[in-house]
This record gives sequence, structure tokens and C-alpha cells, in this order.
Amino acid sequence: MDKYPTVMNNQPIPTAVLGASGYTGMELVRLLGRHPGLSLRWATSESGAGEPVPGTHLRYVRAAAVPLTEAGMVFVCLPHGEAGAWALRARGAGAAVVDLSADLRMDRGGAVYGVPELWREEIRGAALVANPGCYPTGILLGLAPLLRMEMLDGERAVIIDAASGVTGAGRSAKRELLYGEVAEDYRAYSVGNAHRHVPEIGAGLGRLAGSRVDFVFTPHLLPVRRGILETMYLPVKAGLDVDAVRRAVRSAYEEEPFLEVLGQGLPSLRDVTGSNRVALGFAAVAGVKAPLVLCVVAFDNLVKGAAGQAVQNANLMLDRAETEGLTS
Amino acid sequence: MDKYPTVMNNQPIPTAVLGASGYTGMELVRLLGRHPGLSLRWATSESGAGEPVPGTHLRYVRAAAVPLTEAGMVFVCLPHGEAGAWALRARGAGAAVVDLSADLRMDRGGAVYGVPELWREEIRGAALVANPGCYPTGILLGLAPLLRMEMLDGERAVIIDAASGVTGAGRSAKRELLYGEVAEDYRAYSVGNAHRHVPEIGAGLGRLAGSRVDFVFTPHLLPVRRGILETMYLPVKAGLDVDAVRRAVRSAYEEEPFLEVLGQGLPSLRDVTGSNRVALGFAAVAGVKAPLVLCVVAFDNLVKGAAGQAVQNANLMLDRAETEGLTS
Amino acid sequence: MDKYPTVMNNQPIPTAVLGASGYTGMELVRLLGRHPGLSLRWATSESGAGEPVPGTHLRYVRAAAVPLTEAGMVFVCLPHGEAGAWALRARGAGAAVVDLSADLRMDRGGAVYGVPELWREEIRGAALVANPGCYPTGILLGLAPLLRMEMLDGERAVIIDAASGVTGAGRSAKRELLYGEVAEDYRAYSVGNAHRHVPEIGAGLGRLAGSRVDFVFTPHLLPVRRGILETMYLPVKAGLDVDAVRRAVRSAYEEEPFLEVLGQGLPSLRDVTGSNRVALGFAAVAGVKAPLVLCVVAFDNLVKGAAGQAVQNANLMLDRAETEGLTS
Amino acid sequence: MDKYPTVMNNQPIPTAVLGASGYTGMELVRLLGRHPGLSLRWATSESGAGEPVPGTHLRYVRAAAVPLTEAGMVFVCLPHGEAGAWALRARGAGAAVVDLSADLRMDRGGAVYGVPELWREEIRGAALVANPGCYPTGILLGLAPLLRMEMLDGERAVIIDAASGVTGAGRSAKRELLYGEVAEDYRAYSVGNAHRHVPEIGAGLGRLAGSRVDFVFTPHLLPVRRGILETMYLPVKAGLDVDAVRRAVRSAYEEEPFLEVLGQGLPSLRDVTGSNRVALGFAAVAGVKAPLVLCVVAFDNLVKGAAGQAVQNANLMLDRAETEGLTS
Repeated sequence: MDKYPTVMNNQPIPTAVLGASGYTGMELVRLLGRHPGLSLRWATSESGAGEPVPGTHLRYVRAAAVPLTEAGMVFVCLPHGEAGAWALRARGAGAAVVDLSADLRMDRGGAVYGVPELWREEIRGAALVANPGCYPTGILLGLAPLLRMEMLDGERAVIIDAASGVTGAGRSAKRELLYGEVAEDYRAYSVGNAHRHVPEIGAGLGRLAGSRVDFVFTPHLLPVRRGILETMYLPVKAGLDVDAVRRAVRSAYEEEPFLEVLGQGLPSLRDVTGSNRVALGFAAVAGVKAPLVLCVVAFDNLVKGAAGQAVQNANLMLDRAETEGLTS
Repeated sequence: MDKYPTVMNNQPIPTAVLGASGYTGMELVRLLGRHPGLSLRWATSESGAGEPVPGTHLRYVRAAAVPLTEAGMVFVCLPHGEAGAWALRARGAGAAVVDLSADLRMDRGGAVYGVPELWREEIRGAALVANPGCYPTGILLGLAPLLRMEMLDGERAVIIDAASGVTGAGRSAKRELLYGEVAEDYRAYSVGNAHRHVPEIGAGLGRLAGSRVDFVFTPHLLPVRRGILETMYLPVKAGLDVDAVRRAVRSAYEEEPFLEVLGQGLPSLRDVTGSNRVALGFAAVAGVKAPLVLCVVAFDNLVKGAAGQAVQNANLMLDRAETEGLTS
Repeated sequence: MDKYPTVMNNQPIPTAVLGASGYTGMELVRLLGRHPGLSLRWATSESGAGEPVPGTHLRYVRAAAVPLTEAGMVFVCLPHGEAGAWALRARGAGAAVVDLSADLRMDRGGAVYGVPELWREEIRGAALVANPGCYPTGILLGLAPLLRMEMLDGERAVIIDAASGVTGAGRSAKRELLYGEVAEDYRAYSVGNAHRHVPEIGAGLGRLAGSRVDFVFTPHLLPVRRGILETMYLPVKAGLDVDAVRRAVRSAYEEEPFLEVLGQGLPSLRDVTGSNRVALGFAAVAGVKAPLVLCVVAFDNLVKGAAGQAVQNANLMLDRAETEGLTS
Repeated sequence: MDKYPTVMNNQPIPTAVLGASGYTGMELVRLLGRHPGLSLRWATSESGAGEPVPGTHLRYVRAAAVPLTEAGMVFVCLPHGEAGAWALRARGAGAAVVDLSADLRMDRGGAVYGVPELWREEIRGAALVANPGCYPTGILLGLAPLLRMEMLDGERAVIIDAASGVTGAGRSAKRELLYGEVAEDYRAYSVGNAHRHVPEIGAGLGRLAGSRVDFVFTPHLLPVRRGILETMYLPVKAGLDVDAVRRAVRSAYEEEPFLEVLGQGLPSLRDVTGSNRVALGFAAVAGVKAPLVLCVVAFDNLVKGAAGQAVQNANLMLDRAETEGLTS
């Protein structure tokens, strides 16, 4: 890739994070601090310009002040609606770009949809990647092997009951996200397939299955800082049990550095927070007429659900070791 | 009822709480402190005997030291396995008894199963009531009108995804309940219809429906002190929508002092903690082939899920105002 | 008091809460719901006008829409700077008024400073009371008996190390109060006698001592919803020990319904949240040259630190039982 | 050092963690996973023997099953009372040993007291180090430059008001550490210089000052998982202000990789959790007769307060880079 000469010379790539004062941007800054091949040079914040970037020796600059042509790698963590244009601008200036917003998902702007474990080869050649939403990441990873192997009964809906820590809702000041409101509370929101991730989930599942997949998605707001747990009720075909399902998923993922299929038991948030790992567990459901298997997926919404997956995508795009700068 | 002469004289009934140092027992002590008709005279704790009972002027005594023949009303909050025998002993001594353990549920020991909103008349005449489990309370209340009116499609399972605060797991010292383990975590447990409440749920649903009801119950442990939220996926019959369902439930419960069916939106824990209220909300599910309606039920596991419902049952048993000593 | 004829007739007094959608206003609404003598008729919210007031059958109105001449009792929970003018306006319209802001404290606007346990007689005759700040309430109550009895060594400063739950910072959306910021954190703020309560504390202590009292006040933000714990290091005069101090305080407060001086041990937040109680504990300090006694004061910042004390003041102003509508 | 031939060969040193299933032991396992020079070979747990060690490919063994003569480095995280004997046994078998318990502190067993920033040269030559207590670490680091430079007024006591997350209390099942007890609570404990760290603090301060230092230590239990914040009231000599104090401390620590003296503001837990950093901030105190400076010290009780400092000590003992395997 002649566009990244520094890679060839084994020198760290000058990297920019646009929108670095939100939770996702801050996590990306943290991860880049440990990455041997990506050197954070610019971190932007419109309101915090001039202030120090925590954990670094940099100061925030405004996005407009970043010399995009000097950047080899650009991560865009700006708000939805604003991010896509910046991603295209950075790409136009010659940088490799991962956009963490929803703007370029669903085949918009020529971006490749970046779930490495599912579509690795496309990402490897890409210069512009749309990083997946947090909820979709776990759902697609949990269901992909079963959809590809046609193990689910298409006549019944997959029920996806999910819970996320509050950093998933961003760092903007909103009353409903105050400590006084969230602590000791728990609630469902955007239910009935009304959540903004539903089209992305539907598109991903459809692509994996080759046809439309029936599902219901119900997110809940958890009083924790980080982590997503998705409890999925899988309508398996007659004759399939939990062992067959687990075996299929383990086999599909046995080479994956960040995916762990538990031999028994179910994962919890504590097992995954802070790492780029996705833990998947399966359990039998007794006493129902139509066969069901329970699948629980856990991961850190800020890492594998956002900043960590972005780094993983960047590693692939830049032809580096996929696990560089990440822990599992 | 000649066995409770004090009731006739409008004097407070001497009341005992057996097992008063756990979370349920403590909550019962708190509620009795405001109850005009029940006077707490004995609160037991084997390990804490002699120590003051918080919020009262009493001191804990051992269960064996309670003169059961002097008690008009006895609440049994002892551990499962131990409670039933004490409940029968107290009943034998002449007291009205509510057993909060699982020992006498499912038609054991001649006890009436105490969900007042569903089986009020049986409770009114009873001298021995088995207080329901916390999870079953919300499930039965949420589904009862729909089962009685045959609005659910019996060919599909009801999915019940539930989350409970940690006080539901009791106050015994266990490593997995330490603050250092529970905070910032979230996990499913006893999944796949393996939870000890499953037979009780099944029995209750079957009684309401007149036949076996297919369901899957998945409880999760929430990092909050109190509250249960149950998200249920209702397989409604063709032609029924969320409005029909909500209307049916509102109509069934319109006279109920402790049940609130929201006109719109869904309840959260914060709406109900500390009160004996159960809040129920319904939502449509878009984009699925077989019709589903979402039902979310929220209540306080220690109040309507335990101590509050016990007081409500006692009020009925003693022919007092059902809401006495309780807030909604 | 001819201005409150409804009191004479034993009918509930029409009551307004101006600013009823913040944490203090909501708590006041909750407390008034149980108060037999004060009937909440108007609850205001500029942004929420028209929406239901939780836990009531009312809807929010704008402050300008309240017919102040019809109100017998008005509680002002508006922001500092705005509240004072409204309090004077309500007073001018004939209502008895408690202003919960800082605007009329420190002898402004002719208001009486309302710590009932310290200056009860002044409050009893008052029609306009400035409700104290949350932090000052505990400090003044903890130190009053010792200052009045001249038990402290005026040459050394009283160190006041305090911690408050987040509801003390209000319900306005601010980034630093988000769950994602506050959970798992702890910090000091407005240190070095820079907190806005310092002049109020100084004035109160000076009034109790008859001369200026040297003190240092250091507040911290706790990751809890409600409660204040103040750990105070008391420089007692030579010859005085913890028993003498505790005895003096117990004796001063033995008739007080809301103050509890522990015979041993120290209070924690859990002992007081939800009630109007202030719990005070004392402990000896070993191994220091100049004698010190430790005093820990705990109370609920929203109850005794705000709404509960406001009701207590109103009860005195309206010549009702001081404990009406409150729990201890 | 001929006793560690593997060091000479630049091969990782076989390392044992005795007592690896408590919070400190688990944190040490986590840190060793990133350490290039220490290779975890044995992690012990009496109750968990045979189970997998989280985040590793090892399984727990019993302490008695560790071949101590094969270990180059041994960390002892066993309970107080039990740890010291194991540390001496490991040392006798030839290993370099860091004991994280209190057993060998205060000059017992020939161990060097390991605060690297204060007594680095002694640690460098040592084969047996007693790792300091969590609370003492922050107190000694905060006060050392001021004591050594005689900036404090010896006639007045240093007030140390401290708060710690619950992992500081260990992972044994105790009722008072349950989530249901700790959440939404805050309390002081072991007050009045009764905490078991007081003699260690006194010994350390005395050694730094060359004479006995008067202090009061008041620990509190915070509802957070990890982190210690110590708010100290420093009685500075006449003529000294906050700038002089801050300048002295900055100057003393300017070469220290893990100590950060803030130029302004005060640190909070969030700034330090997860790292081996200690952040120190200073603030002026206005309006007091005798001059005081406020000092706030923040660090992670499990890292710099335990496992991280143990690794830092081991790095010095083994003549490796002091920061190896640690983040600041």
C-alpha cells in the first residue's frame, strides 16, 4: 500500500482521533497509548480545545485544525450525522479511516462494514471502514455460525433481550443519564424494534442468512459504567440441541483471538470489561414444546463494541497483526 | 372470627416476625412500624438474639422464645426448609400465619396461595397463607388477565426475561454477593427453566389458563439493592394488538389499589421501589411475522414481592382494609 | 394567626411547591403526600408544565400560574438567585413561606433561619423562614451544644470533612454528574473554605459561640444518591473526654424527636436515609498530644437537609405538631 | 546476583503467587500477565485448587504443592498471620520474596519495608521485602518530602481523613461487605487511631521525621470497588503556603515515574484506578488562624496500594527496570 510509506519503514503511523473527549474517543486514546504501530498525534474536542488529553502529553485541538493530509490513520468518533462527512474528508486527504458512527454503515459512502471475525477479507483491503454498532456486534457474532449453517428455524423469531452500561449512551449531559437517575434503576427503552440499531441488525442478519431474519430486540439501561450482555433465545431446528449449537459456534470461532466460546456456564460483564474479548455461552432450555437454546453474549461496549474493534479493523486495514494494541 | 378477639375490640393484634434480621424480615419490621392494626411484639434472630431491632424499641429473641399462643398474627421469614414447620406450629398455636418461604406453596400444608389480586376470596377466609415468590408475583399478575381471557397463542412459548436486585438473594454472607463482585457486573443465572421458582410459576400459570402454559424463564442479577423488572414477550392470538391487550389488563385491574397499568410507556424500577405497587406497561413489536406484544412488569422484590404482599394478605385474613399499612 | 383560617377549622392548608421537579421539590411532594395538614395543590415546573406530578393526581403548572393569594403555605425550591424574590412575593400575598434556597439566609429579607432544634421559638412565630443548607444543618447540630457550653478550645480549628450524595448537586444535566462520571469515583471539591456554604456555616457557628469559630470545611462527592456524612475533629478543652462530650450532647438533645445521639458506635448513611433523623456519634482519639474528640453526623440531605426540615419548619410556623408528616 | 541465574540469561523468572484468589492476588496475576520478565508458573488457592486461574492457562494449586526451590520470585498474598511464615519459607528455599501481608512489616523477619520512592536503595539489594499497607503508602508518600524538609509544625496533629473502596477489605464472604449493605452507604470505621495500619503509619512517619509525628487517622468505607483517597490537613510552619509545599513535593518527586504532583486542582479516584500511579494535589485553606495546607492523595488500593507496588519492588530486587509491567 504505497499510500502508507511509514508502514513500510516500520515507523508508527501518525494517527488522529476526531472527537476524543466522549467515552468512545477517550477509550480509543487509551488503547492507542499502548499500540506500537499507531502514534496518536491529534485528538480533537471542540469544547475542550487547548486542554490536556488525559493520559497523554497532547492537548485537544479543534477538528478543523488537524492537517488531515499528514495523518496516516484517522478514527472518527464524532456524533452521528456529523461523523460521516469528516470520515469522507479524511479519506479524501489520503488517510485510512475508521468511522465509529452509524453514518457510513449499511453500505453508505463506500465503506466496508467492519466485523473482522465475519468479513475479515473485505476489511483487509479497505481504506474506509464503518465500525459496527455496539449491540449489533454481539448479536451478529452470536448468530453468524448458526445462520450460515442454517441451524435456526426461520418460522420463529429470535428474541434478543439486551442490557448495556450507561457509557453506551454517550457523555453528553442529559438528565436521564445523571447518577441520581440511573443508580438503583433499570429500564427498557426503544423497545418493539424501535431502536436505531434495528435496521443495522436486520441488514447484518439478512446478509449472514441470505434472507430476512425475524427478530425482536429489547435494550435495557443497566446501572453500570461499561459492558453489554445480550440474552438471546434461539429457535433451533428440530433435532438440534445445545451441544450441537455450541459445537458449531466453537468450531467456527476456534481460531479467533478475541472470541471465547465457553465450554460450560454463561459469561458475565465482569469477565470481559476492559478487554476486546467477546464471551459466548450456551444453555439448554427445558420444558418447552418447540426447541430453544439460550445464548448469552458479553463484551465491553467501549472496547469490542467501539474503540477496540476500531483498532482491530485498523490493524487489518494497515496489514498489521490483528491483535496489536489489544488485550483479550 | 372468634379466634382473634383483639380484632373485635379494635386493638392492635400482637404480631410476631420469625426470622427478622434478613432483608425480608427487616422490611416487614419496617412496614409493621406504620401499621395501625398490627403491633410487632416479637422479632426473632438466632444469631442476633439480645440485640436491638433497628427502627423499633424491641430486642431480637430466639424463635423458640416466642409464646406463639399469645400471637394473633405470625409472619414466617425463616429459610426455606425450616419455615414451613414453624408456620404450622404457629398455626397450631392459634395464630393467623403468613409463611413467606416456598415451603407451603404449591398446595402444601393446607395453605392458601396468596396473590390477593388473583385469588382474593380464598385468602379472605384463610388462617394460613403461603406468600408467593417474588418472580412469580409479577409474572402471574402480568399474564393473568390474558390467560383468563384466552388471548395468548398456546402454540408459542411466553419468554420471560427477568432481572432482580441483590436483596432477592438474601442477606447471608456469600462471596458472589459481595459488593466487589456485584458492582459493575450483570449476569444470568439458573437459566433454561432451572430456577427454583419455575414449578411455582408453572403451577400458577396453569391454574389461570386451565391448562399447561409454555414458558421460558431467565433471571439475571442486577447491581441494585431492590426491585424486579420482568420483560415478557407475549405470543398473542392473531388479530390482537397492544391496545387490545392493554385494555384487557386495565379493565381487569381497574379497581386494584396496588396495580397500575400505564396508559403509555414502560415502568422502571425507580417508579416502584419502596412501595407495594406493581406497574405494568405494554408495547407493540414491529416487524415480526407472528404477533407479539411486549409486557414489562416492575415492582419492589422486598415489598410486593415479599413483605408488602404478606401484609396485604394478613389484612385480608384479618378482615381489615387491604391497603392498611401499605403505600402504593 | 388569623391569616390561616383553614388551620382553625382543621382543614388541610392549600400548599404550593414552587420548583417541584428537582430532587428537593420531588422529595417535598413525596412528604406532603403523607402530611395530614398540608394539602398539595400546586406544584410548578417551567419545563414540565402540563405533565403529571409523580405520585400525585396533579399536573405541573408554571410558577406564574399559581394563585398565591389562595395558598396558605408555600415552599420555594427554585434555584438560588431566583427563589428569594418568589418567596417574598408569596409572603406578600399572605402565605406562610419556607424558602429552601440560600437567598434569604444570613438575615436577608427578614427571614428567620430555620434549624428548629437550635432556634425553635423564633421559627414558631415566623411567617417567612430560610431553610438551612444541607451541610450546615449537620455541622450546626453537631457543634451547637459544645459551643454553647464552651467545651471547645478556641485556639484550634474544627476540621470538618464531609461527604454528600449526588442529589445534593441538583437535577440539572451536567456532565460531571453523569452516572458514567460519578460511579466508582470519589473526589473533594470546593475545598479550602471555598464552598458556598462556608459563610452560612461561619455565621451559624459564630451565633452559637458568641464569637468567631475557626474551622475548615472540605466537602467530597460520594457515589450514592442521598445522604451526608460529616466527620468532625473537635478540639476539646483540656480535661474533656469523649464521654463528657457525648453526655453534653445527649443531654441537650434528649427531647428532640429527630436527633439521635448514639450511646456507642458511629452512624452510617444507611441508618438515616429516607427519614428526617440526624444521627450523631462520638469517638475518642488516642495518641495525640492535644485532646481531640471525633464526631460523626449522618442525615439525609434531601430530608433533614432540605425537604424534611422545611416541613418541620412549616409545622412550627403553622402551630402544628412538629413531627407531623415526618418519620424519624 | 548469582541466585537468579535466569535473570542473567534474560529469561523470564519462574514466579509464584501464594494466595491468588483474593482481590490482591487476582490483581497480581493480572499484572504478571503483562510483565515480560516474570513468568507466572504457580498460583495457589486452597479452596479453588484445580480450577482455572482467570486470564491465564494455569490452574490453581495448593500452596504446599508449589516447588519453592524452583521459583525465582514469590509473592505472598496470604492472610495476615499466615503469610509471614510462608514468606520466610520461600526465602529459605532461595527465592526473592515480596510479602504483601502485614506480618513482616515494622522490621520483622529481616524484611525491608518497600516504598520504592522513599527507600529505593535498600530495596534494590533486598531479597525479602515487606510490601506496605495500602493506606500507609499514600500517607507516607504525601508527607515524606514535608517531614524530611521539616516543613510541618510538630505541635499540631496531621489530620488524615481517608476513604477506601471495598476490595481493600478482602474477598472473604462477610455480611457487612455484601452489595446490599455497602451500596448507597458510607461509614467510618476503626476510628480514633484504632485501625491496624496506625502503628505502621506511625513507624513510617517517625522514620521520615526523625521523631514521633502526631496524627489522627480516620478511614471510611466507600461504595466503590477500588481506589483510596486520602484528604490530609497539614499543619505547616508559619510562613509556608500551598505554593511552597507543592513546590517542595514536586521537586522531591520530579523523577518518579509513578508519582504525579498536580500543578493545580485535586485528584480523584477516576484519575488513578487501574494504574500504579499516585496523584497528589494541594490546596490552600482560607480563614484559619494557624496555617494549614490541604493535601489530597489518590491511588488504586489494589495496584500502588498492593499488587503494583509489589511488582515495582520485585523489579528493583531483581535489578530490572522499575516500571516493567506497570502503567502510570
